[in-house]
Amino acid sequence: MKNDLGRDVPEGFRPFRGADASTTEPHRLIPAKPAVEKTVFSVSLSDVFDRLGIRDGMTLSFHHHLRDGDFVINMVGAECARRGLKDLTFAPSSVFPCHAPLVPLIESGTITGLVTNYMNGPVADAVAAGKLKRIAIMDTHGGRARAIESGDLPIDVAFLAVPRVDRQGNGTGCEGRSACGSLGYAVPDAAYARRVVLVTDEIADAVAKPELDGRFVDIVLEVPSIGDPKGIVSGTTRLTRDPVGLKIARDTATLLLRIGALRDGFSMQTGAGGTSLAVVPYVRRIMVERGLKARFASGGITAQYVEMLESGLVRTLKDVQCFDLDAVRSRRENAAHEGISASEYGNPFFAPAPVVDLLDFVILGATEIDLGFNVNVTTDSLGRIIGGSGGHADTAHGAKTTIVTTNLVKARLPIVMERVTTVTTPGEDVDVIVTERGIAVNPKRPDILARLEGSGLNVVPIAELMAIAHRMTGVPVRPASRGRIVAAVRYRDGTVIDVVRQTGR
Amino acid sequence: MKNDLGRDVPEGFRPFRGADASTTEPHRLIPAKPAVEKTVFSVSLSDVFDRLGIRDGMTLSFHHHLRDGDFVINMVGAECARRGLKDLTFAPSSVFPCHAPLVPLIESGTITGLVTNYMNGPVADAVAAGKLKRIAIMDTHGGRARAIESGDLPIDVAFLAVPRVDRQGNGTGCEGRSACGSLGYAVPDAAYARRVVLVTDEIADAVAKPELDGRFVDIVLEVPSIGDPKGIVSGTTRLTRDPVGLKIARDTATLLLRIGALRDGFSMQTGAGGTSLAVVPYVRRIMVERGLKARFASGGITAQYVEMLESGLVRTLKDVQCFDLDAVRSRRENAAHEGISASEYGNPFFAPAPVVDLLDFVILGATEIDLGFNVNVTTDSLGRIIGGSGGHADTAHGAKTTIVTTNLVKARLPIVMERVTTVTTPGEDVDVIVTERGIAVNPKRPDILARLEGSGLNVVPIAELMAIAHRMTGVPVRPASRGRIVAAVRYRDGTVIDVVRQTGR
Repeated sequence: MKNDLGRDVPEGFRPFRGADASTTEPHRLIPAKPAVEKTVFSVSLSDVFDRLGIRDGMTLSFHHHLRDGDFVINMVGAECARRGLKDLTFAPSSVFPCHAPLVPLIESGTITGLVTNYMNGPVADAVAAGKLKRIAIMDTHGGRARAIESGDLPIDVAFLAVPRVDRQGNGTGCEGRSACGSLGYAVPDAAYARRVVLVTDEIADAVAKPELDGRFVDIVLEVPSIGDPKGIVSGTTRLTRDPVGLKIARDTATLLLRIGALRDGFSMQTGAGGTSLAVVPYVRRIMVERGLKARFASGGITAQYVEMLESGLVRTLKDVQCFDLDAVRSRRENAAHEGISASEYGNPFFAPAPVVDLLDFVILGATEIDLGFNVNVTTDSLGRIIGGSGGHADTAHGAKTTIVTTNLVKARLPIVMERVTTVTTPGEDVDVIVTERGIAVNPKRPDILARLEGSGLNVVPIAELMAIAHRMTGVPVRPASRGRIVAAVRYRDGTVIDVVRQTGR
Repeated sequence: MKNDLGRDVPEGFRPFRGADASTTEPHRLIPAKPAVEKTVFSVSLSDVFDRLGIRDGMTLSFHHHLRDGDFVINMVGAECARRGLKDLTFAPSSVFPCHAPLVPLIESGTITGLVTNYMNGPVADAVAAGKLKRIAIMDTHGGRARAIESGDLPIDVAFLAVPRVDRQGNGTGCEGRSACGSLGYAVPDAAYARRVVLVTDEIADAVAKPELDGRFVDIVLEVPSIGDPKGIVSGTTRLTRDPVGLKIARDTATLLLRIGALRDGFSMQTGAGGTSLAVVPYVRRIMVERGLKARFASGGITAQYVEMLESGLVRTLKDVQCFDLDAVRSRRENAAHEGISASEYGNPFFAPAPVVDLLDFVILGATEIDLGFNVNVTTDSLGRIIGGSGGHADTAHGAKTTIVTTNLVKARLPIVMERVTTVTTPGEDVDVIVTERGIAVNPKRPDILARLEGSGLNVVPIAELMAIAHRMTGVPVRPASRGRIVAAVRYRDGTVIDVVRQTGR
């Protein structure tokens, strides 16, 4: 079966029929988990497995707020392997290189299903190599919340790493030696998983800003360490210093001003890439010069947004995930730095509207972009899995204006091409591409094109960007993969927008 | 048809089958209204009616944040009458005495349907007298949000009074000469009504804390005045000074301490009644003595909660409605004073859980209580409509412990009786009744009973409270009404928990 973008859809999955196709229909919402009678405290993972009767075929979920410093997923994986469990589905919100110990579990059939929003490193390579028995599912951040709340992704047990837990089982990510900030991606799991385990290395009498409610926690498991602080958050987030990246960032800010996106009370988000982040100081300068204040900034929060909050330039931060230590501190101390759940952030069915729908603009990155403005951030041009949507497709759909910033050529490969290897975000949701060689505007946004006339910005058709890239690099030859389908890329409504096929050896 | 409490259910309605019966099943959620292309500004209500094609049989909705000072519902009603429209359904979140001008519209058949959460005054009297053609529906605050989001209450046009609107159509209740604070009850209407009109008497360049998003606003209608400030909020909220009320309040605080509800990080709500509010200073004293801090206080917010927020005793206020001017100021200035929507507040299907589900305790009032702990706040003992649930049934169900405080006898009538005239809140959701003559604990809470042993509090069976009351007043004779059904009282899940019958003449 093919979907509306002409991409293959494996059997048993629904095809993508356009970004708005299913959000205009009624949606099913299953009830959240009822409050537990009494939260149990344990110090043994084996005891937790016994108490919960964890067995073959179950689905275990995790969050990724500890990022590349996470110990919890590996710890649970090791216990599964020790018990000889088979055919488990792991559903972490993201997978990082630190999760390499899962590879032998995938090879041995302990883990045969994987549902995640982002993966890179050895696990991603194992999936691309066809080692996972079933088709991996790659959701968006909002789509994962939707899947959980609608019953599409039933979770037997959620193992949620939490930096500090109080004696009532309330958890926070803002305190403790493993502090990672907001726990937004864990909120749906805590509410909907049949059983909920908080895994922590700090138990306190009370936590100041509980993000996970103890009433829904079956077991608190105390372990020596939930993660490596060095991998959890970077001390500070790095902006690009590359002059090409800075030109792209500057042009993007000029464009935003020109199209009227920078008016008083606007709302914004930038992806975590160095070029996207580099737009922020230019936007900030315009705000100060013109006396503008932003209503909110959302998404992954960095030090530069904290500074803007503290200096009164941004009224509220809507934080689903902290990217650096300043963000963690601010989230802990400042009531205007709000935590939001993955559902409130990007679930297309969040009532009345997820935060992404209220964005005036979002600045995103890309691995590949094609002539239909489709964007790939899931695979590289060889079909290797190097990421995934995260919030890419959620914000691209929600924001009034979606801008992709990227160098036109990276590692001698053109970024603009006829047809992306994998569609992560459909072209209908992408409005502008800003490169150092020119800016392309999606023909479905003639209003933007009109406003850029006479702006001095170098606006060119997207085909022209491709031609420029080809003049620099030649036309790369990309043999289409014929391997079996190893992953289904799901759009936020649960339909399949593309698949990833097994990479050759 | 009878429901699980043995009460009548009119044809075409679903019977109440217990407080948890339908919240454990999947729920339907319809999509919110898409963003509008361009918000139109108008200064003529007649122009608005023409543009929207308002016609016979439509449903028009309103909120009640301007309380007894509201001009907007009457203004819209007058235009409907002027145009000779018929068979309209009005769906205001509450109705007050100031809405008396609707009575002739009910009599003339301009308004034949009414859906609301609370009503008193001439409109309530007209409904009880059987003047409304169809059966009025009385929802809870959370149930109204559920009805709107599930498609049970489709709204053609929402007319939302907003104290200040900016040029993008964003609205706030915290600023302007008619400032009323949080607009939480209007949020579902703004998101789900087919067409949305903000009615305002102040248009500004920008508003600081938009509560209604301009992207969902079809028309902004500027009028000379949306309400009478004297009726909108009282300057300060009055606590009882009656020594009987104070004894009840003091005993309630002692009980809360005794049952362990006052631990660090607890969450609370008190109803707006003078006795419920009088509990707060006693709770505050215990908090200061023991160094306790509350996680949040929710619901209608008053000056005393603002003081506790500002002195650090309460970490966050979750405000669906401001009851006095201090609350309005605090909501405007303090980021820890959060606005919440009616859905987030009490919708049983709000994902993952509405705020009421996170309450450790709620203190509520009652007009009548019966031996099954059922509570009536909808009618008086003569069957006249004098109120309605508002958030009563929502918080009673959500809170871990629900306490009803009331004088045992009011106006020479016993408050505790064999069977309440009208069930607003089912007895399964009511845990404790505190009166000046004794405290009754619901037998389904043996844990509370056990903790009160040896406390010095006068705990008695509820039948004993009734006997005491009868000794004071005699046994009142209450002839059962045989009139036609004039109102259906809906539980928060949309099932009918009781009906109100026409009062005799």
